[in-house]
Amino acid sequence: MPELRKDPIISRWVIVATERARRPGTFVEADHHMFDENNCPFCEHRESQTPSEIYALRTGTGTVNAPGWQVRVIPSIKPILRIEGDLNRKGQGLYDVLNGVGAHEVIVETPRHVANMADLEAGQIKLVLETYILRINDLERDPRFKYVLAYKNYGWPAGGGRIGHARSQIIATPVNPMRVKEELTGAKQYFDFRERCVFCDLIRQECESKKRVVIESNHCVVLAPFASRFPFEMWILPKKHNCDFAKGAVGFLDDLAVVLKKALLKIKIGLDDPAYNFVIHSAPFRRQDPAKAQKWKTIEEDYHWHIEVMPRLTHVAGFEKGTGFYICPIPPEDMVEFLKGVEV
Amino acid sequence: MPELRKDPIISRWVIVATERARRPGTFVEADHHMFDENNCPFCEHRESQTPSEIYALRTGTGTVNAPGWQVRVIPSIKPILRIEGDLNRKGQGLYDVLNGVGAHEVIVETPRHVANMADLEAGQIKLVLETYILRINDLERDPRFKYVLAYKNYGWPAGGGRIGHARSQIIATPVNPMRVKEELTGAKQYFDFRERCVFCDLIRQECESKKRVVIESNHCVVLAPFASRFPFEMWILPKKHNCDFAKGAVGFLDDLAVVLKKALLKIKIGLDDPAYNFVIHSAPFRRQDPAKAQKWKTIEEDYHWHIEVMPRLTHVAGFEKGTGFYICPIPPEDMVEFLKGVEV
Repeated sequence: MPELRKDPIISRWVIVATERARRPGTFVEADHHMFDENNCPFCEHRESQTPSEIYALRTGTGTVNAPGWQVRVIPSIKPILRIEGDLNRKGQGLYDVLNGVGAHEVIVETPRHVANMADLEAGQIKLVLETYILRINDLERDPRFKYVLAYKNYGWPAGGGRIGHARSQIIATPVNPMRVKEELTGAKQYFDFRERCVFCDLIRQECESKKRVVIESNHCVVLAPFASRFPFEMWILPKKHNCDFAKGAVGFLDDLAVVLKKALLKIKIGLDDPAYNFVIHSAPFRRQDPAKAQKWKTIEEDYHWHIEVMPRLTHVAGFEKGTGFYICPIPPEDMVEFLKGVEV
Repeated sequence: MPELRKDPIISRWVIVATERARRPGTFVEADHHMFDENNCPFCEHRESQTPSEIYALRTGTGTVNAPGWQVRVIPSIKPILRIEGDLNRKGQGLYDVLNGVGAHEVIVETPRHVANMADLEAGQIKLVLETYILRINDLERDPRFKYVLAYKNYGWPAGGGRIGHARSQIIATPVNPMRVKEELTGAKQYFDFRERCVFCDLIRQECESKKRVVIESNHCVVLAPFASRFPFEMWILPKKHNCDFAKGAVGFLDDLAVVLKKALLKIKIGLDDPAYNFVIHSAPFRRQDPAKAQKWKTIEEDYHWHIEVMPRLTHVAGFEKGTGFYICPIPPEDMVEFLKGVEV
């Protein structure tokens, strides 16, 4: 069972593997050899090569773990957290520890051997988004979990592994992630001061100035954030205020799928198919927890779900790791000018 | 002039290049070609190939920018921040912007073409540490700066560039880095509650249990932190409480140099010469600012300078970027067992 360990100084949780799966001295990631179509375990007709499915979207009345699916969800074979067991919160002197209880699922986005989500049809991406929502809603019912994160690693430098078959991941965690807490705290401070959502204000300002808008649709806007951390970082924001992706996005998944495809295709075409990550930030669903009711009183009003897309074009060096302030080698306004010129 | 831009949600500062030095589309870092000894601009006798020196430690009465030095400090040729100009703090609607004023210096650690600090004599490393202190003390006098960070990028994946000649960097910034602020806040909360320094308590607990101690000397201890973010992360902590590296380390630089060399040599030998970063975390020297006197009242007592060493053995993937919680694939206790077995 992995452990969740809390840094005693800054209260950051780290997931520490405790099974000696990786021996010291075997850490240099030298093997970039990719599985190809002929031995990809995620392709249709190779269902027996993966763990038994948690869910699959099927067209017919198909059998479980058999061909005939459109999107398929399986448990991760290298889970970061384990689904069984209790949290067993305990101290070790200064330190706080929890059992690494959680869920870690892989969403196989297509039965065909397509590597990049950018190359899926928008209709297929919509099915993937629906699957995220379905799995998030299901995991929300487990009282041990506080947060569910849907995200994607594409390409080797982004942690995308050695199988070139489009997939995303879902992790349910027993503690709220630090990055999300920072956003919640910052958004709450803004709301307390101005009684408006900071993301709504940001969308309004950006849609007026247009300088950092990559794509605008009926329901969404894709921005290069003013304080971009990485070259070609993009945030996809719903125009209509909602703190919760799984509830808020339901009304415009067609629109969101088209926008997500376009954004990913722009970096694929414009930047020669780079590695990238995206993560969906949504309010913690335990926000209604009565014990925290006062603290999270305004969360529905002050937080705003969004997707952060982070291409992996540069290394993060010591300065950035050591200080937490990032260096972006190109102005966001120039990124946008460039991306707007990429036809998709 | 680069800009410092503040994220309006979480108040993180980002340094944004505004000169179009890097065109969009030229971001894929494909060129790993290294300069060798025959064309390294940092070697002795090639002083004319670098900008004019800011400082050099010389044995004789040597001429500036001439051979005969032991450690040499030059301005960065690709400075992240610029030394000239005023901060010119301003708003742009929601956003806060500062001019990217700061200092960015390169400390060439040896006149010989040696790549890894681990391979320098401890006596030479001591000279490098003395140079850090000298430059930090000098930069502290500039009222525009709030923080000075000394750090090292070694090897390509750590942002170490294409010149295999041992060097570190010093950056002076006009705002306090977020990571340091988080540590200051966390250490203050602990102190307010317990009236003890969290780092001192941590050192006491670790030196008793020994489970995570890699090296212990008269003055320092090298730990694998309980909540390590990366495989083989190490913290070098002075046993004697002091918030300020430039003042606190002066009494035992011999000891610190030996310990730093041993720590770096252990990862070099044990892990096949991996890329790594290290950063020195010290209290902001503007802590005596009368306007902030109440806020920083206890900083001398509750903060504790230290060096964080971060080998670059694994990729940071989407989950970690999106949540801020890290996954460490090996228990720190196993790292220590392995590193203790590496003879240096």
